[in-house]
Amino acid sequence: MIIPLTPIRFLRYASQQYPNKVALICGEDRFTYSQFAARAAHLAGALLAAGVEPGDRVAYMSGNCHRLLEAYYGVVEAGAVLLPLNIRLAPMELAYILNDAEAKIVFFEEQFAPLVEAFRKDLTTVKSFIMLDAPASSVSWAAKQNYEEMLAAAQPHHADVMKIDENSLAELFYTSGTSANPKGVMLTHRNIYLHAMNVGLTFNTGSKSIELHTIPLFHANGWGVAHSLTFVAGTHVMIRKFDPPEVFRLIQKEKAEACSLVPTMATALVNCPDRAKYDLSSLKRITLGGAAASPTLVREMEAAFGCPCFSGYGLTETAPVLTTAQMKEGMNWEGEQRHQGQASTGYAIPGVEIGIVDADDNPLPHDGKSIGEIVARSDGVMAGYWKQPEATAQVMRGGWFHTGDMATIDENGYVLIVDRKKDIIVSGGENISSLEVEKAMCAHPAVYEVAVIPVPDPRWGEIPKALVALKPGASATADELLEFCRGRLAHYKCPRSVEFVDALPKTGTGKILKKELRKKYWSGTDSIRPEMATKK
Amino acid sequence: MIIPLTPIRFLRYASQQYPNKVALICGEDRFTYSQFAARAAHLAGALLAAGVEPGDRVAYMSGNCHRLLEAYYGVVEAGAVLLPLNIRLAPMELAYILNDAEAKIVFFEEQFAPLVEAFRKDLTTVKSFIMLDAPASSVSWAAKQNYEEMLAAAQPHHADVMKIDENSLAELFYTSGTSANPKGVMLTHRNIYLHAMNVGLTFNTGSKSIELHTIPLFHANGWGVAHSLTFVAGTHVMIRKFDPPEVFRLIQKEKAEACSLVPTMATALVNCPDRAKYDLSSLKRITLGGAAASPTLVREMEAAFGCPCFSGYGLTETAPVLTTAQMKEGMNWEGEQRHQGQASTGYAIPGVEIGIVDADDNPLPHDGKSIGEIVARSDGVMAGYWKQPEATAQVMRGGWFHTGDMATIDENGYVLIVDRKKDIIVSGGENISSLEVEKAMCAHPAVYEVAVIPVPDPRWGEIPKALVALKPGASATADELLEFCRGRLAHYKCPRSVEFVDALPKTGTGKILKKELRKKYWSGTDSIRPEMATKK
Repeated sequence: MIIPLTPIRFLRYASQQYPNKVALICGEDRFTYSQFAARAAHLAGALLAAGVEPGDRVAYMSGNCHRLLEAYYGVVEAGAVLLPLNIRLAPMELAYILNDAEAKIVFFEEQFAPLVEAFRKDLTTVKSFIMLDAPASSVSWAAKQNYEEMLAAAQPHHADVMKIDENSLAELFYTSGTSANPKGVMLTHRNIYLHAMNVGLTFNTGSKSIELHTIPLFHANGWGVAHSLTFVAGTHVMIRKFDPPEVFRLIQKEKAEACSLVPTMATALVNCPDRAKYDLSSLKRITLGGAAASPTLVREMEAAFGCPCFSGYGLTETAPVLTTAQMKEGMNWEGEQRHQGQASTGYAIPGVEIGIVDADDNPLPHDGKSIGEIVARSDGVMAGYWKQPEATAQVMRGGWFHTGDMATIDENGYVLIVDRKKDIIVSGGENISSLEVEKAMCAHPAVYEVAVIPVPDPRWGEIPKALVALKPGASATADELLEFCRGRLAHYKCPRSVEFVDALPKTGTGKILKKELRKKYWSGTDSIRPEMATKK
Repeated sequence: MIIPLTPIRFLRYASQQYPNKVALICGEDRFTYSQFAARAAHLAGALLAAGVEPGDRVAYMSGNCHRLLEAYYGVVEAGAVLLPLNIRLAPMELAYILNDAEAKIVFFEEQFAPLVEAFRKDLTTVKSFIMLDAPASSVSWAAKQNYEEMLAAAQPHHADVMKIDENSLAELFYTSGTSANPKGVMLTHRNIYLHAMNVGLTFNTGSKSIELHTIPLFHANGWGVAHSLTFVAGTHVMIRKFDPPEVFRLIQKEKAEACSLVPTMATALVNCPDRAKYDLSSLKRITLGGAAASPTLVREMEAAFGCPCFSGYGLTETAPVLTTAQMKEGMNWEGEQRHQGQASTGYAIPGVEIGIVDADDNPLPHDGKSIGEIVARSDGVMAGYWKQPEATAQVMRGGWFHTGDMATIDENGYVLIVDRKKDIIVSGGENISSLEVEKAMCAHPAVYEVAVIPVPDPRWGEIPKALVALKPGASATADELLEFCRGRLAHYKCPRSVEFVDALPKTGTGKILKKELRKKYWSGTDSIRPEMATKK
């Protein structure tokens, strides 16, 4: 018997087996699994009544809220594709995404009405805008019924699970795109189903689990929790806006066992003096992801919360989780070694296979030294980029997904990311991690921020150059900084020149636009960086 | 990206991520995951060298042993189909199975050489017999190389996982067949993969898990543990022969956390006085299955072992696990109510959907009263019966697998089996559970064993009749027993007649052959029981 693998089965199972269990806590609202499933079925019915057809894209502009979690099931139950938008993007980016995805409907929260207003005239395919959490009349251009009115008016719809094509599209997420236009990542029903099982097995998620949604759900389902927790009928607790005292209050009140954080969130929690006022003893696990964590942060988090804290790694394209740095059985690390291990990129979770390859896609040894691009095979790896078969073929070459992250893998299977591929500087055959050099220069007391980039060199191919912004009122010469660097790094890694700038250009989410910086030094030369070659 | 779901991935992952972890303990032998994987790869190479072709059936006559677990991976890695034989069957049954399956090779342990000798001349397709654990020369008809020699001589073979058809056959198990010839249950790669994930999620199996193989692996993989534990790189501990002190010794020595038992095994463990001599504190979970457990047994087991003990339910056709009676989150039962719940059939595990239907396949309410046949949909449900499309269509009708077990389901999703379908007596429109009546009569001090069967009746259709064997030296009249019964059961359930017999006919595994008993009363009458009609 072949039962299609679809996330619809998760909510079906939970509502059949745990109808009266609390599924979802969002502000003052609490929903049982029976209520959650009924609302998702009404949403599906409402979408069909609104003319949504199989495969149509339905977009959401929403913070973490029960209505967005309902969409993860209701939109898919209607046979449509969920498109959760990153609410931190600029109006132009959002318009680009909605047009590229050819979205039909946009659901939005009142707080984002001005943002939607700013770009809605540029949209080419969206037919209606539906208010999620306020009267439809709050804005003139919203549909006549708001979300709750739509649900109340709709007949519940239940898809026939046996008729679903498990390899059809269920969700479309756009990558942040520091180097090009955002790309739509296509996740199928099967991608989502198996990823959730892999994650559930890794973290022993069960019906007793109570997890905080600290990460926005629009980041690849809040790292998969939207699905893995529903399947086993655990309890979802929404954090509408990340605010340390509110996080502490909810952990105490709802006895939350786990949450995922980006390192900046973790730093804020560690440094919030209110922490001591709350009982946080229910916590069993904190996962760090989205950016590199430090052993110091892991140590501080464990001391502050009294539970294991460790990193994880993944990409939107991989649904997302690929690794965990939860200490591997048999390691028996203690103290600083354990903190280092738990702050590393970690090792492949069940269902995931990871390797590193050189520029010609030859596998490199897992010796803890060889640096190569991380490639992955997993059930969570996307079907491809939306309407971009060439970009898809490029990242999927040889049957492996190419992450663009450069790393080592040691004999225990532990991965350690050293840099993004395009930020690695290849000088005289040596790989230089720009991150490592930046870290060394940042330790100088006068430096506010720094970007180390490759510039062309006739002898070495390329050499590292540092672009430095000094702290207000501080001063340092280029020679001083170079000398400082040579005391900390192998000479071949040290920048050959320093240029002072007022500030470094950044994306909306604060990532430095290194590609922009590099352009100036490479345009007009005969040298071609691989990223600028036609192949890439 | 679609990666075929195949159990080969389980051992691949475990040996990549945990190469030096102990995978397998069998007597004095211990194998790491790296060694386990290498031996499986050599077995695959040896089978290919021996001329095994894709889809060929490879049979095993073996108790629980590392070599049989190696076969679960090596045979499948070679592209062949594993056929584990029930070592308790009679020679004629084994010959029937091997011929029906058209097996090509039989691996056997020395202890079963006389048994194989007894039927090997009746085999039509088997080309060679390979000794597992003794010199090939121990018997004249064995192949020249024994198992270890074959492995040593072979090149390791690794299948290309990406080229496997996940819906192709991986394992063939024969049902015990109390009512007809044994039927071959076809389990695909996907069946096995997803079943293992469902079981792993249910029991939170992880890399720290250490499980005892108390159940023979030839019973649907020892209830799936062969796969679910390998995937997360847990440790397998083999029990070669079930003997209570040996079970205690291994729990203590290897710090085993879990095991599965049939109720008679559990009773033997509870009643073994040696128990107090061992430290059994590592145990975290004991599962009972294979037959109905009593609340008393659950209570005694928990008292004796100091860990939760609960039932589970499944069939070979469902890979096998369908339910667990592990107390459901939110139940909060205590004392006798908890023991009753944990001794019940339990509720569907994640990935499984269960219902009860009437004779016309109409769904019945989950009210704890309506009795219907259990039907199931799960990723573990077999592809069908080997070479029996009609029998397959019959049990799969309407897209649900029909278990043949009659049960109630209550509003909490808890299933309670009342009888096998064919043993239910339908009298004047009322369903009578033969098990319930037998339990009532067995309480009489003079009764040794009893079978309650339906006999034809012109007014009621059928009525219950009791066939009773008395204890040696005991005496009781039919009237006395009927009176005893009426004091304990509703009158319509009580037998209308009693017949005394010396003993009841049984299968090799001790199940009473009710079909044989019924035949005498139904042959030559105009009445037709559904089981004897052509439809069945």
